[in-house]
Amino acid sequence: MGRVAVLGLGLMGGSIARAISELQIADRVTGWSPVSSERDAALTVGAVTFAAAGWREAVVDADLVVVATPLSATLKLVGEIGDATGSHVTVTDVAGLKAPLEEAASRGGLADRWVGSHPMAGSESSGFWASRADLFQGARVWIVAAEAANDHRLTVERLWSGIGAVPCGIGATEHDHLMASVSHLPQLVANILAEVLEQAGVDPDRLGPGGRDMTRLAASDPGMWADILAHASPALVGALRGVSDGARRMADRLEAEDLEAIVQVMKRTGGWRGR
Amino acid sequence: MGRVAVLGLGLMGGSIARAISELQIADRVTGWSPVSSERDAALTVGAVTFAAAGWREAVVDADLVVVATPLSATLKLVGEIGDATGSHVTVTDVAGLKAPLEEAASRGGLADRWVGSHPMAGSESSGFWASRADLFQGARVWIVAAEAANDHRLTVERLWSGIGAVPCGIGATEHDHLMASVSHLPQLVANILAEVLEQAGVDPDRLGPGGRDMTRLAASDPGMWADILAHASPALVGALRGVSDGARRMADRLEAEDLEAIVQVMKRTGGWRGR
Repeated sequence: MGRVAVLGLGLMGGSIARAISELQIADRVTGWSPVSSERDAALTVGAVTFAAAGWREAVVDADLVVVATPLSATLKLVGEIGDATGSHVTVTDVAGLKAPLEEAASRGGLADRWVGSHPMAGSESSGFWASRADLFQGARVWIVAAEAANDHRLTVERLWSGIGAVPCGIGATEHDHLMASVSHLPQLVANILAEVLEQAGVDPDRLGPGGRDMTRLAASDPGMWADILAHASPALVGALRGVSDGARRMADRLEAEDLEAIVQVMKRTGGWRGR
Repeated sequence: MGRVAVLGLGLMGGSIARAISELQIADRVTGWSPVSSERDAALTVGAVTFAAAGWREAVVDADLVVVATPLSATLKLVGEIGDATGSHVTVTDVAGLKAPLEEAASRGGLADRWVGSHPMAGSESSGFWASRADLFQGARVWIVAAEAANDHRLTVERLWSGIGAVPCGIGATEHDHLMASVSHLPQLVANILAEVLEQAGVDPDRLGPGGRDMTRLAASDPGMWADILAHASPALVGALRGVSDGARRMADRLEAEDLEAIVQVMKRTGGWRGR
């Protein structure tokens, strides 16, 4: 993969750096994080060969730059990185929304060498200490790129395939619309469920495996999510109203002892989920 | 543990039989299932030493009977098992609600030798083929028993400890009230979320790890749940209305771009879940 620079060494960037280094698929991995302890840790465990104190220093001589910071920082970096790198350098990011990134890349003069990535992998934990080399094994990675960036797309797809992920092309708007359903809605439903349990005075220690899974995401980083929700698809509001209506209908059915209607919902959703 | 009879050889009964046999903590394990292929499979893999064609045959000579059938069948069996077993025989069950069982045991003349169990372990899968010997490792098991059944309680607690679980005493009504929050509500929220995603035309294949966790329970057995919901605590209706209100408030905040209010919910629920 030549020389790779990873900007941001949290869960995502740290895992990418670890995977590239462990699998030795690049000549060099340079890392940068605004958190000095993350830079030190990445260097100590050998996730990076050099940890720069500033992002501009990290991208010097890089062939591929991976931006793995929170969304608002990524938007800023992608806007500035064009001037700091040569015109042959591939730029990718791992932000959870792609339309705002596509726009930032275009404004930053990167349209023909920016390739957006969004790996469907992660955790409710964050920071370098939560990162692991196998985070992307078998994970789908959405790839958004303009026709003009086709060569760079191949580079980015090779990176993901090289660390065990499965790249898959999609349009930026379609991606963001899909995320409202498959990512943002489940996150907020976990918070909503956890809020009800917390207010009922339930000790989380009492949860079984199902309840634990259903509230795991409630421990996700609020700041990271505020960033994403500020740019989320309008479809998310409608989906939340759908959950509100569904929960009200379920309560009505239970109150009316209409178990048959509940069984019908369970059969349909079971058929969907089991597919 | 002497001679154990396991009635029902699905996920729960199958896992109990497998664990007892693998860890050799009983002199003999007799099994019964209304499904002949489950009886054959349990015998073939050595989960039971004898598979009876009828439950009465399975409990002959047993010291401990474990009823692990769906709730309505368990209620029926616990009502009839008193007459079919000697007065020294311990009877336990693994149903997800305990107040209806306590009543059935009392009606069936079992008050002084019935000990209700509810292991907080399971899966969205069902049937003997989903069972495994380590299902209960580290799992909390709620134990409900009358003072008069104290000796039998010790027997049942020894069974659970012997297969790696952690028994914990609770009252039947308190247990069922707690389950409305930690078990029934998360189950129905998974169905409600899955219904919204299904109606939005989302391919479940597109889910990431968070979305998969949040909809896993939607594949649970509807028949088993109809049984439970028919006897669930009235608190469940209120909890569902709480989820409905929470989702509506979240939609309102998102529409009003009040991200600060959403961050506050996330911080609070994150603090709760992270405890």
